[in-house]
Amino acid sequence: MNLILLIPDDMVTDARARITGRRLRHVLEVHRAGVGDELVVGLLGGRIGTGRVTRVDDSLLEMDVRLDRDPPAGLPLTVVLALPRPKVLRRVLHSLSVMGVKRIVLVNAARVEKSYWQTPFLTQEAIDRQLVLGLEQSRDTLLPEVLLKQRFKPFAEDELPGMIKGSLSLVAHPGVAATCPRDVRGPVTLAVGPEGGFVPYEIEKLVSLGFIPVSLGERVLHVEAAIPALVSRLF
Amino acid sequence: MNLILLIPDDMVTDARARITGRRLRHVLEVHRAGVGDELVVGLLGGRIGTGRVTRVDDSLLEMDVRLDRDPPAGLPLTVVLALPRPKVLRRVLHSLSVMGVKRIVLVNAARVEKSYWQTPFLTQEAIDRQLVLGLEQSRDTLLPEVLLKQRFKPFAEDELPGMIKGSLSLVAHPGVAATCPRDVRGPVTLAVGPEGGFVPYEIEKLVSLGFIPVSLGERVLHVEAAIPALVSRLF
Repeated sequence: MNLILLIPDDMVTDARARITGRRLRHVLEVHRAGVGDELVVGLLGGRIGTGRVTRVDDSLLEMDVRLDRDPPAGLPLTVVLALPRPKVLRRVLHSLSVMGVKRIVLVNAARVEKSYWQTPFLTQEAIDRQLVLGLEQSRDTLLPEVLLKQRFKPFAEDELPGMIKGSLSLVAHPGVAATCPRDVRGPVTLAVGPEGGFVPYEIEKLVSLGFIPVSLGERVLHVEAAIPALVSRLF
Repeated sequence: MNLILLIPDDMVTDARARITGRRLRHVLEVHRAGVGDELVVGLLGGRIGTGRVTRVDDSLLEMDVRLDRDPPAGLPLTVVLALPRPKVLRRVLHSLSVMGVKRIVLVNAARVEKSYWQTPFLTQEAIDRQLVLGLEQSRDTLLPEVLLKQRFKPFAEDELPGMIKGSLSLVAHPGVAATCPRDVRGPVTLAVGPEGGFVPYEIEKLVSLGFIPVSLGERVLHVEAAIPALVSRLF
């Protein structure tokens, strides 16, 4: 937790916050902060700054808060990701949030097992938990938007064309010769397939919309590594 | 498992292999391969190629093997990593192996909890398991070398200078202005600190040896994301 993420309910006044529960325990156990110590804080959806501890005990921490800086800029990147299996999903949501991706579309694909859509990790609460952990790690406050699209074809035909307008659209596809471009400055839409990849029909559909298949070389990465590798290559 | 990794014991002759156990189950359950089907195979430490299934039942799979290609080139990269906590260690070893890193040094640091050195995930067998999973994912056969260095200072003073000779030496250090270089062609040594980072003494020691502190921008990544992000940026 490199930043204590405050929510509006924590704010007693504009300049004073109170935290309890998970965040309090973390401050007590990891930061071991006492009265007078300063913590990096941020207001969910707002600015970041400093919290000076004015009171702390086992049940409550109170601090004077000065929010004087903007959070890091989000990446101009939409990630369209074939729904991974639940354990992987959690870690990937965390990583996407850490990397600064602000729009995530979880989509069905032929090689996505149907049962994955039933996981409790897809509830809004469970998704937000991973995203918040990512913001706390990367000192950010802007919660990514996560869209769930359980049907590939209507999503690809009816929504994706509008969504990718004005962006460089890439689909990560191990085995193709074209490598993922580096240091792109403009908006990007990046599609990432399931384990085993998108099937030919899906690739053709994406290509027909203007997506360019790219790889990271000869190696086939697992999605947990592929996401940070691709994002860090692009930006 | 994008490649069935064979070991010398699997080879009945130079051109015929038999597999059982975990790999057999994977072929039966995921590839669902039958007689005549072709699988991507590789010999540990050797070449990769094709295995044509000649016999398969619940206890054994036999195939005719043709090893006619070299595995992907390893990266000219040594990663010196402060020992992460056990769960993270496993995932990071897997990722390093997937990305093609061939020399990994797990080192102590002030912010590494002593108990981490006691984890069963540091046995050679547990380490190799993660590395092999990485090779199977990325269609590689060359097992990375993993060195354990439980004392930072003697390692940094006595061994590291020789190890980094002729390489660009970087230490990932969130917060510094210099960003990690892109598309480096030569050998690199990359040091990555623990959660909370290297302490000033450790950074100064690394800098005195010629390490350059670099970051990936404003965000502080967790090590699971930082490793693929840095490697993909460098190569």
